[in-house]
Amino acid sequence: MDKIWDVIIIGGGPAGLSAAIYCGRAMRKTLVLEKKVFGGQIVLADIIENYPGFAEPIVPADLMDQMSKQCQRYGVVLENDEATALRREGQGWRIDVYQETLEAKAIIYAAGSLHRFLEVKGEKELLGRGVSVCATCDAPFFTQRKVAVIGGGDTALVEALHLAKFASRVSVIHRRDQFRAERILQKRVFQNDKIETIWDSLVLGFQGERKLEALEVHNKKTGRIDILPFEGAFLAIGTIPNTALLRDIVELDVNGYVVADLSLATGQPGLYVAGELIRGNRRQVAIAVGMGVQAALGCEDYLATLD
Amino acid sequence: MDKIWDVIIIGGGPAGLSAAIYCGRAMRKTLVLEKKVFGGQIVLADIIENYPGFAEPIVPADLMDQMSKQCQRYGVVLENDEATALRREGQGWRIDVYQETLEAKAIIYAAGSLHRFLEVKGEKELLGRGVSVCATCDAPFFTQRKVAVIGGGDTALVEALHLAKFASRVSVIHRRDQFRAERILQKRVFQNDKIETIWDSLVLGFQGERKLEALEVHNKKTGRIDILPFEGAFLAIGTIPNTALLRDIVELDVNGYVVADLSLATGQPGLYVAGELIRGNRRQVAIAVGMGVQAALGCEDYLATLD
Repeated sequence: MDKIWDVIIIGGGPAGLSAAIYCGRAMRKTLVLEKKVFGGQIVLADIIENYPGFAEPIVPADLMDQMSKQCQRYGVVLENDEATALRREGQGWRIDVYQETLEAKAIIYAAGSLHRFLEVKGEKELLGRGVSVCATCDAPFFTQRKVAVIGGGDTALVEALHLAKFASRVSVIHRRDQFRAERILQKRVFQNDKIETIWDSLVLGFQGERKLEALEVHNKKTGRIDILPFEGAFLAIGTIPNTALLRDIVELDVNGYVVADLSLATGQPGLYVAGELIRGNRRQVAIAVGMGVQAALGCEDYLATLD
Repeated sequence: MDKIWDVIIIGGGPAGLSAAIYCGRAMRKTLVLEKKVFGGQIVLADIIENYPGFAEPIVPADLMDQMSKQCQRYGVVLENDEATALRREGQGWRIDVYQETLEAKAIIYAAGSLHRFLEVKGEKELLGRGVSVCATCDAPFFTQRKVAVIGGGDTALVEALHLAKFASRVSVIHRRDQFRAERILQKRVFQNDKIETIWDSLVLGFQGERKLEALEVHNKKTGRIDILPFEGAFLAIGTIPNTALLRDIVELDVNGYVVADLSLATGQPGLYVAGELIRGNRRQVAIAVGMGVQAALGCEDYLATLD
C-alpha cells in the first residue's frame, strides 16, 4: 500500500460527486469509487426538469458528466471499483476493493439505494421510455395519458395520487387484494375517480417498440392474462439501501437505512454519509447534491483537526 | 382577500426558488415573496465554481436567473414584497405584506440571513462611503487603492482575492491567528503578493470625514492600537438569520437560527423551513437548494392530507 487517501468516497452518484467537488476544492487527495456508472441511477432517466439551475429540461447523463468533469478539475480521482469491506484501523479507514486494500483518513459513504425491479421482460429496455421509478420526477411528462402504478405500499399510493393530477387515468396494479399503505392514503385513492385498482395481479412484461405501449397483466385469481395499453408505468415496489458495509459500524433502521441528522456525521471518526441511503430520503438529485456538499464540509472539518 | 395560496414561500434565494420549482411542478398555487433581489445574496458574488453540475465557473446571477425562470415555467408567481408578520389562523396561515394580508395553506420559510456588523464607531456612518459588505459590488471603486477585509472565513478570503484584482493592497484583518476558510482559498491568499494578513486584531472604529480614511486596529497580543490608513473596508464577519417572524412559532437557538432535523418540518402544521436560517448551515448554494427541495416535498405531503 503506497499511499493514503485523505478521503475515499464510496458511490459516484450525485451525492458522491458533489462531495468530491468540495473535497477536491479543499485540496484533499480524494478518490471516488463507483462500481457501476459514474453519475448514478439518474443517468438512466430520460430527462430531468427539476434540478434547480436549469430553466430548460436537461439530459441527466449530461448533468452528471458535468459533475464528473467538475471533480476532475479539482484533482479528484474517479475509479470504477467496488468496495467490498470497510473497517476502522488505527487512525484511519481501510477499504477492500477488487484486488487491493485502500487506506483513507476519512470516508464519505454515498452508495445510494437500489430500486426493486420486477425482473420481467421489457422492463430494463423500456426504463426511461415510459417505465419510470419516480412519479415526482416524471409525472408532468404523462399529462392526459394513461398510466399504471405497480405496488401497494405508501409510495405506490402517493405516486398514484400525484399522477392523478396529470394523467387521464391511473391504474394501480397490486398483487394482493388489499393495500398495505396507510389507510388515509387508501381512502384518498378510493375517492379519486381518476384512479382505479387492479387487484390480485402481476405484471409479467412490458411491451413496446421504442416506448412503452402495454403491460402484460396476469390475474392470479382468474388465471387470465390481459394486454393492457399504458403509456407510462411507475414501479413502486420498494428500494434497498446499499448499506451492507455499514452494518456493524453505524446505526441502521429495520430496513437498512442510515439514521442521520443534518450534520451527516455518523458518530464514527471521519465517517460521513450522504444521499439515498439515509432514512427518510426522497430520491431527488438536488437533495443528494446538498447532502454531498454538507458531508464534505463536515469531513473537511474533521480532516482539519488532523492537519 | 380574494384568493388562498396553496403555498407561500418567504424568501427568493436558492432555497426558496428551489422549493418553488417543486411546489409548482406539484401543481400547487405558489407565491414567492422576496423583499430584495430574486436570487438572494449569491447574486452579489462574482463567480461560482462549486455548484454541482457546471464543470466551468458560472456567473451566480445567471444561475439564479435560470432558477427564477424554472419557477415561472411551472406557474409560480414571484413577487417583490416583504412579509412583516406571520400567524396561524383557522386551518391556514396569514402573512402581512406591505398593503395587504395574504392567506396560504402552507408556508416554506426560507428568508436567509443578513450580514453581521461590528457595531463600532463610524461603521454605519461610513457604510457606502468606504465601508462595504460586498466586494463584488464595490471592488471597482477601489482600483489602485488600499483596502481592508475584516474576517477569516470563506467569504473574507474570497472577497480579498477578488479585491486584489483591483486594489493596490489588501489587508485581511482577523481576530485569530489562523483562518477557518477552505484550504484552497487560504493557499491562494498566501500566494497572492498583493494580500497581507493582520492577525490577532480587532477593528475598534472607522475614521473619516465624508469617506473612510483609516481603521483603528487593536492587536490583542501586543495590546497596541494602530491607526491604519485604508480607503476601503469590507466586512465579512458573519450573518444573522432572518427569523424574526418565527420567534414565537418555532424553536430558535440562542443566535436566532432555526433548530431543525432532516425533514425540515417545524412541528407547526404546514410550516417548513429551508436554507441559511437553519442552525449549522454552511452558506452554500447547493445545500440551500437541497433543503428547498426537501422542504417542498414535506410541504406537498402536508397539502395532500388536505386535498
